[in-house]
Amino acid sequence: MCELLGMSADPPTDIAFSFTGLMQRGGRTGPHKDGWGLTLYQGKGIRDFRDTGPGSTSELAQAVLQRPLAGTVVIGHIREANVGPICLENTHPFTRELWGRHWTFAHNGQLENINELPLERFIPIGSTDSEYAFCWILNQIVARFSPQDMNTAPFWQAVHALCKSLNSYGVFNMLLSDGETLACYCATQLCSITRRAPFAAAALKDANMRIESNRHSTLDDTVTIVATTPLTDDEQWQRFDKGELRLFRQGKATVCEPALHTA
Amino acid sequence: MCELLGMSADPPTDIAFSFTGLMQRGGRTGPHKDGWGLTLYQGKGIRDFRDTGPGSTSELAQAVLQRPLAGTVVIGHIREANVGPICLENTHPFTRELWGRHWTFAHNGQLENINELPLERFIPIGSTDSEYAFCWILNQIVARFSPQDMNTAPFWQAVHALCKSLNSYGVFNMLLSDGETLACYCATQLCSITRRAPFAAAALKDANMRIESNRHSTLDDTVTIVATTPLTDDEQWQRFDKGELRLFRQGKATVCEPALHTA
Repeated sequence: MCELLGMSADPPTDIAFSFTGLMQRGGRTGPHKDGWGLTLYQGKGIRDFRDTGPGSTSELAQAVLQRPLAGTVVIGHIREANVGPICLENTHPFTRELWGRHWTFAHNGQLENINELPLERFIPIGSTDSEYAFCWILNQIVARFSPQDMNTAPFWQAVHALCKSLNSYGVFNMLLSDGETLACYCATQLCSITRRAPFAAAALKDANMRIESNRHSTLDDTVTIVATTPLTDDEQWQRFDKGELRLFRQGKATVCEPALHTA
Repeated sequence: MCELLGMSADPPTDIAFSFTGLMQRGGRTGPHKDGWGLTLYQGKGIRDFRDTGPGSTSELAQAVLQRPLAGTVVIGHIREANVGPICLENTHPFTRELWGRHWTFAHNGQLENINELPLERFIPIGSTDSEYAFCWILNQIVARFSPQDMNTAPFWQAVHALCKSLNSYGVFNMLLSDGETLACYCATQLCSITRRAPFAAAALKDANMRIESNRHSTLDDTVTIVATTPLTDDEQWQRFDKGELRLFRQGKATVCEPALHTA
């Protein structure tokens, strides 16, 4: 299995604290030692870091953490390989361009017989069930919707239905983003914490590290962290219901109602 | 304008030496200070590093260079912004998935009125003429060819013709790869050096750095470096002709003849 990390924030927020916690579970406090990846949005652009070894001992991860790394949306992943060998093309997150945006995806779980689903335009590069599922979602989206549908209720309701379909093939906890919305589907385990100014201090479960977020924040600052299991032990993480899709935009939970239509 | 760096190698070869030379031209020995990027293939997977500041003072570039970074194909770029503001989505190289492979592209030059060319499936994320040209190439490829055409002569002849068409819009020196072939089109300036065992020593033009490549090589090792202008001053770089497309595979020059058909 694997672990997931997601962030939605406004303004751009440094992911170092949560990323440090996640990385420990890549071989030190957890068994997810078969690669790690982090994709971070800055505007419409992305930065991408990944490696095929344990996150807890990764020199690249340590180098990345030595400087501020702020983004508005982040998707991170640590892998314990099930389907597909340990190699760079099988590390999450996966990214594709659709409608002039980077779409990014990471998955926790395992899907059986997923290859029976048809693919067209988006094709996996690696051999994981996860990337296959991502490609299927994008193929379904592009077959049914246009760019102007992107933030509408029917669009996200359809994504929710696609997640439920994939869930019928096995465990499917996932994070998906177009760089604006962070969509999080829970099959078995996913939780989130939304931090707003004035921020309380927080301490990581997996490393001896605290943040005093309040120092640099203004009253409008909001950041939501999503993870398969809580990353801190002195905050109240909200557990998702099984089968639930939650959407976050600019750090805040949002719902897929017609009022969201922005076309 | 910008500068380009390409590598094709077998076995996977560390790019640190050439990358160090290129980075100096990003603000120290050259004016290309508006961002840099490096995309490196390891198998079918890629590593991607980029930033919007000068390469010569980039902490990320220095961190990347502190550990071995070996790949079979590399495309690197330093930017002096002309079209499109300085931001992450406007830094080269650009990458898209097509036929289950990462395709990577970087461009030196400037194209006028490129937006009159029609786009369909592949859409730019940023606002550069370069990414627009890349998307147009991929749209043309997907409209005319199938995955089994990938290494055929007609395929690369068509890519050559697409490059010439783009060249009619302005200066178009470019590097393009599907992770196996490195295709290099010269509008005005491009040169290459192929190093084979037993390797001679080489010294960078732009930094006080030498390699003694021979130490770790075997007789079959071959690496070709492509750049807009030579990176070393004690080797014989081969200048491309204007309007020429050269293909490299596993470090060696190859030609687009029917014999290349591998389907």
